[in-house]
Amino acid sequence: MVALSSKFLAFSPLILASVVTAQTFRRLGTCPTLGCVFPPDQADFLPGALFDIRLEVHAPVNGTEAYNGGVPDEKFTFCIQKGKKGKCEDVKKFFKVKEAELEKWEFSYFEDLFARDAGAPSVVNVASKAYRSLTLKESGDYYAKLTYYGRSETVAHWTVREANKKRKAKNVVFFIGDGMTQPMVTAARMIGHKSINGKYQSMMQMDQMEAFGMQMTHSIDTFITDSANSASALYTGHKSSVDAVSVYGDSSPDKFDDPKVETIGELFRRRTGGPVGIVTTAYLADATPACLCSHTRARGQSAPIIYHTLNGKSGMNDLTWDTSCEGPDVFFGGGAEQFIPGPGSWNGTDFYNAFADKGYNVVNTKSAMVKTSNKKKTLGVFSISNLAKWLDRQVYPENLQNQQNSPTGDGSAAVDQPGLKDMAIKAIDILQSRAQKDQGWFLMAEAANIDKMMHALDYDRALGDLLELDDTIRATIAHLDKIGELKDTLIVITADHGHGFDVFGGVDTKYMQAQTGDLKKREAVQPYAGSGASSYQVEGESLASNNTYVVGPQGPNFPVQWDPRYVFAAGMGASPDRREGYDVKKTGPRNPTVRNADGLYVPDPADQPDGFFVTGTLPPSDQAQGVHSLTDVPVYASGPGSEAFRGIYNSIDIFYKIADALALGKESK
Amino acid sequence: MVALSSKFLAFSPLILASVVTAQTFRRLGTCPTLGCVFPPDQADFLPGALFDIRLEVHAPVNGTEAYNGGVPDEKFTFCIQKGKKGKCEDVKKFFKVKEAELEKWEFSYFEDLFARDAGAPSVVNVASKAYRSLTLKESGDYYAKLTYYGRSETVAHWTVREANKKRKAKNVVFFIGDGMTQPMVTAARMIGHKSINGKYQSMMQMDQMEAFGMQMTHSIDTFITDSANSASALYTGHKSSVDAVSVYGDSSPDKFDDPKVETIGELFRRRTGGPVGIVTTAYLADATPACLCSHTRARGQSAPIIYHTLNGKSGMNDLTWDTSCEGPDVFFGGGAEQFIPGPGSWNGTDFYNAFADKGYNVVNTKSAMVKTSNKKKTLGVFSISNLAKWLDRQVYPENLQNQQNSPTGDGSAAVDQPGLKDMAIKAIDILQSRAQKDQGWFLMAEAANIDKMMHALDYDRALGDLLELDDTIRATIAHLDKIGELKDTLIVITADHGHGFDVFGGVDTKYMQAQTGDLKKREAVQPYAGSGASSYQVEGESLASNNTYVVGPQGPNFPVQWDPRYVFAAGMGASPDRREGYDVKKTGPRNPTVRNADGLYVPDPADQPDGFFVTGTLPPSDQAQGVHSLTDVPVYASGPGSEAFRGIYNSIDIFYKIADALALGKESK
Repeated sequence: MVALSSKFLAFSPLILASVVTAQTFRRLGTCPTLGCVFPPDQADFLPGALFDIRLEVHAPVNGTEAYNGGVPDEKFTFCIQKGKKGKCEDVKKFFKVKEAELEKWEFSYFEDLFARDAGAPSVVNVASKAYRSLTLKESGDYYAKLTYYGRSETVAHWTVREANKKRKAKNVVFFIGDGMTQPMVTAARMIGHKSINGKYQSMMQMDQMEAFGMQMTHSIDTFITDSANSASALYTGHKSSVDAVSVYGDSSPDKFDDPKVETIGELFRRRTGGPVGIVTTAYLADATPACLCSHTRARGQSAPIIYHTLNGKSGMNDLTWDTSCEGPDVFFGGGAEQFIPGPGSWNGTDFYNAFADKGYNVVNTKSAMVKTSNKKKTLGVFSISNLAKWLDRQVYPENLQNQQNSPTGDGSAAVDQPGLKDMAIKAIDILQSRAQKDQGWFLMAEAANIDKMMHALDYDRALGDLLELDDTIRATIAHLDKIGELKDTLIVITADHGHGFDVFGGVDTKYMQAQTGDLKKREAVQPYAGSGASSYQVEGESLASNNTYVVGPQGPNFPVQWDPRYVFAAGMGASPDRREGYDVKKTGPRNPTVRNADGLYVPDPADQPDGFFVTGTLPPSDQAQGVHSLTDVPVYASGPGSEAFRGIYNSIDIFYKIADALALGKESK
Repeated sequence: MVALSSKFLAFSPLILASVVTAQTFRRLGTCPTLGCVFPPDQADFLPGALFDIRLEVHAPVNGTEAYNGGVPDEKFTFCIQKGKKGKCEDVKKFFKVKEAELEKWEFSYFEDLFARDAGAPSVVNVASKAYRSLTLKESGDYYAKLTYYGRSETVAHWTVREANKKRKAKNVVFFIGDGMTQPMVTAARMIGHKSINGKYQSMMQMDQMEAFGMQMTHSIDTFITDSANSASALYTGHKSSVDAVSVYGDSSPDKFDDPKVETIGELFRRRTGGPVGIVTTAYLADATPACLCSHTRARGQSAPIIYHTLNGKSGMNDLTWDTSCEGPDVFFGGGAEQFIPGPGSWNGTDFYNAFADKGYNVVNTKSAMVKTSNKKKTLGVFSISNLAKWLDRQVYPENLQNQQNSPTGDGSAAVDQPGLKDMAIKAIDILQSRAQKDQGWFLMAEAANIDKMMHALDYDRALGDLLELDDTIRATIAHLDKIGELKDTLIVITADHGHGFDVFGGVDTKYMQAQTGDLKKREAVQPYAGSGASSYQVEGESLASNNTYVVGPQGPNFPVQWDPRYVFAAGMGASPDRREGYDVKKTGPRNPTVRNADGLYVPDPADQPDGFFVTGTLPPSDQAQGVHSLTDVPVYASGPGSEAFRGIYNSIDIFYKIADALALGKESK
C-alpha cells in the first residue's frame, strides 16, 4: 500500500506518531494527535464571520495513548500563516488580541466497548487556551500551527472562501424537513397524489422547485449525525460533533465554553439589522431551532438555550461573543416547559414574562396567533413538548383531547394548535411588517415531526407532516406572491439528516387480521406486482387503479383516506424489536417499545396488535426507537440565488450559498 | 368527499360502473373497466416512433365482475380523434390499415389473497384485436375511444410530445446502475473516499457530473416495479407492468403477441443506421439488456430474447414489427446458457454459431476481448450466469476458482472475466470504429450486480460493483476525451429502481464476536456518535479519524481495506429472516436463506455465523431475498443535452430526453 503524506500540510512537521488503534469512542473528535486546534484542519470560513479559537494539549494518564506522565505541555505556541509561503505570526499579533488565560481540566472516555464494559476509562489531562470573537477577512488559504511537546505540530489548513458581494435575495425562507429523505418524499407523493397509469396528475411542490440538489450530512467526526450538529453545519458553514449546538466540541466539562461559530441568524442580524424568525413544530429548545441563536456543547441544555436565544451575547460564563440574533422577531413552536415557571425554565422563572419584558407579544393558541399584531416581536408557545402531528390535528382530532399539554401549564388540553403552515404564513407577515427599507428578513421553519415520527416508526404520521411541509411551501409561495415579495425571496428546503425509510410493497390488512401467527401474517405483505396502485387516493374500497380523480376532506395534495384495506409496507434497516402491522394508528402517535424488567427495549404489546413481531438490529439496552442514517438528503430551492443549489455538495455549502445570496460575507469585521 | 369527473375525458361517456372492490391482483393492469385500450390512457409518444395497438373486451365469467354471462362483445369499435374537437375516425381509416383479425381467449386470476388461498380464480373471456407497427406523426393530444357493450366507452388520452429537431449529441453512453439509489452512492462514497474532518478529499465521479436529477420508477399499475418494466420505461417512453419487456402487458396467454413499443436502440438504428452496443455484468438475456432489442410479456423467455436480439423483426408468431436493432454491434455479458447448445439456447442450437453466422466475432475471455478487432460486430460471453462481482475479481480472486461456469460449457472455472470498465471501454472502441460519418453510436452499459447483491443482502459486494460503475464512468470520460469524442457524447447514468438500503451506524466486529447470544451481539451496533469515522480508508487498525491519505491495492476511489474491525451497519426494511454480522463475506457472494422442510425461507445457518438472528418482514413462503423499493432514483448526466436531466420527473422522461438529444423524433414514419 502506498501512503502519501497529506498534501494539506504546508510544513514537514514531526507529527507525533499515533500508537492508538481504532477506537469506538474517540478521545476528541477532529483531534487524532495530542495537540488540538479548533476550528480544525479542513475548516471553511466566510470572510468576516465570527468564530472562536480553542487550543488543547492532551496528556493521557493511562490507556494506549499514555504520554508524559499525564502532564500536558503548558508552553504550547500557536501561529497563523496566510498562504503557503510567508511568516507564521503568533496568534496574538495576527488577530491583535491579548494573551488568553491558561485553562486546565481533566476528562475521561472509554477507548472501546470492552473498556466500557470493564468500567475502565482512559483519563486525560488538558492544558488549553481560547481566543474569542475573531474573524478572517481575506479569502485564501491559512495554516494555523500549534506547536507542543517541543517539536510536535498540529497544522490546521483553513480556507476562507470568496464571498459574493452583490446581494441577490432580499428575503430567505429556509425550510428544514427534519429527517426527511427523497424516499420519504416519494412515499408522500404516492399517498398524497393520484397516479393514473403511471402518470401523476399532480406533483409535490418540492418536485417543482427551480433547483434540485443533494447534500452530505455526515458530522465532523462520525458518519452518522444528529440534528444538533447537522443544523450547526447548515447554519454556520462549520460541521461539528453529535450534540453540539453551533460550537465545535472541546473536551472541557463546561458546556458553554466551547468555541463558537457565528450562525446565519446572527450574521444576518449583524449585517442588515433585519428581522429573524424561528418557527418549529418541535419544542422551541430543540436542536434545530436552538442552533440558530444559541451556542452550547450539549443540546439538552434547554433552559439556557431559551435564555440565550432571547438575550444573546454574553451572560454565560463571562465569555465575549460579539454577535447575536438580538432576540428573534418571531419565535413559534412548542416546549412550554421552558416558559412556565418551574423545573424546565431559566432559574425557575416565568419566561413568558421574560419575553414580554423585552417587548414581545405572547400568544398561546392558533386563534390568538392569527389575530395578533404584525408590528411587534412575537413569542408563540402552543403546547408543552412537541406540537401535535398533522394527522391528529386534521384527521383524528379527538387525539388532541384528554392531554395535559396546555402551554399555560394549567393541565388542560392544547386543542387550538397551529400547524406549520399557519405559523409560517403569520411569521412572514410579522417579519415583512417589521423589516425596514430593504433590510429583508430571514425565516427558518422546521417540520420537526417528520423526524420524530420516523424515530417512533410511525410512518403515516411522518408522511403526514411531510405533506404538511409541502403544503406550507406551496402556501408560502402563494403568500409571497400576494404580498409582492416572491421574486425577491430565496426559498430553500432541505433536511438535516435521514432515516433509512423506504416503501417495499403493499399489505392486505384484512388478510393479515384474518391470519393466526406471525409467519402467516407476513404473507399479507406483497412486494413487486402485488404492491398494486395507491389506495390512498380513492374512497373506501374503490379499485385503487381506477382513473377517477377524487379530493379528500383535507383537500388536494393529501390522501383521500388513511386507512384503506390495502396500505403500504415500509420500514428501515435499523430498528428496535417491534411489531409491524402497517395500518395507521388512529389513537395517536405510535410508541413501539417499552422497557422490560431487565432494562431492555421490547415491543409494546399494545402496539400493532394485528401485526407480527420483528427483531431489531439495534442494541436493546439503549435504543427504544429508530435512528438516523447516512444518506445524502435532498435540497430544493427557488428564487434569486437558487441555481447555486443544484448538484451534490456538503451540508456546510448550504450556509455559504445562502450567505452568498444575501451577500453576508465581508472583508471587514 | 367531492368526486370530480376525470378531466381527461373528452366525452361524457357511460362508464361501466365498477362494482369491484379493491383487488390484490388486478384483472388487467391499466384496465379498471371491461374495455381495454393499449397504449392506455395517459400514454406519451415520440412523433414517428412505432407502437402496436391492442384492444380487449372482457366478460368475466364469475367473481365480483361477472358480466353478460361471460360473453364478450365481439362487435366493439375503436376510433381516434385528434384534439378536443373533431371527428373520431375509425382506426382503420386513421392509420390506413386493414381490419385486424378477431382473437379470442380466456384467462383467470385471483381477486385477492383469500381467493388465492381458496383456489378460487375468477375466469374472464376476451375478444380482442391488434393493429401493428403504427406511428403518430403530429404532436398534440389524441383521444382513442373504444366502444363496447353498446354504449360503454373507454377513452385513452394519448399525448404526442413535441420533438426536438436539432441533434445535440452524436453519441450516447447510457449507464444503468441496477437497483442503485442515492443512499447507496452515499455509502459507496463513505467507504471509497477519504473524509477528513467532514471534508471529502475526493468525490465520486457521479457527484461531479454536470446535471443531477431524480426520476420516479413506479410501474404503470403498481407502485413497486421490477427491472423489466422499468427498463422498458427508460428505453421506450412507455411504462408497463412488472415482468414486461418493451411491451404493454395484455391478457393473452401468448407471451409474444403483446403490443410492442419501439425502443431507443431500435429507433436509433432506424433513424441513423449507427451502431448499438449492449454491455452488462448480468446474463445477457436478463431484463435490462433484453428490453433494448427484444419484446416479450415474460422476462423469463431467455432463449427467445437472445434469438430476437440477434434477428430482430419478425420470426415470432408471424407478427409484423417494422423496426429492429438489426443485431447489436456489441453484445457483452454473462449468460452462456443461452449460447451453449442445450436446454437454455434457442431450439437447443449452438447460438455462438448463430452469431458467428451473422458475421460476429465471438470472444469468451477478457484477454480475447481486449485483443479482438474493433471492426466487426462482437459477441462476448464471459461466464455462465451473471459475471463475477468486483469484490471477488479484485480483492478475493480465489473465489473465481472451483466454479464450473466457463462460457464454453466445458465445466472449468471462468477465471478470465472482464469487469464493467473493461467491457465498456472496448465497446466504445468497437462502436466508434464501426460508426460511419456522423452516425454516432449508442451504448447501454449495466452495472447489474448492484441489484443482485442487494437482493442477496450482500451490501459489500453491491457497493463494490457500484464503485466499479463509478470507476467505469471516470474511465469512459477519460477515454472519450482521448479519442476526441467527449464533447459530442451525452453520458447519462441512472437506475431502474431502488432497494430500501441505508447505513445506520458502525459495528465493532471484535466486540460482536466476543459476545454470546443475539441480544448481547446487538450491543456491538453503534448508531449516532458511535458510528465513528470510516475505517475503510485507513490501513489495518489505524485510527479511522486520522488525517493521512492512503491509497489501497485497487487504487484511488476504492476502499483501502474491506475488513476493518469497525464496519458499517446497514440494511433495509424489507428482508426475509436472516442473520446479520455486517462483516464482509470473503468466500463469495452472500446467500442469506435456505428453504426448510415446510417450504419456508429461513436463515442459512452458515451465513453470518458471528452475527445475530433478525426476523424478516416479507412472506417466508416465497421471498428468499430482499426486494425492490419505491424510492425515486438519481440521474447524473454530462455532455450535450445533459441540462435536460435536472429536476424531478418520471422514468419515461429519460427516453424523451435522450431521444431529443439525438433528435430521433420525426414527423414521418
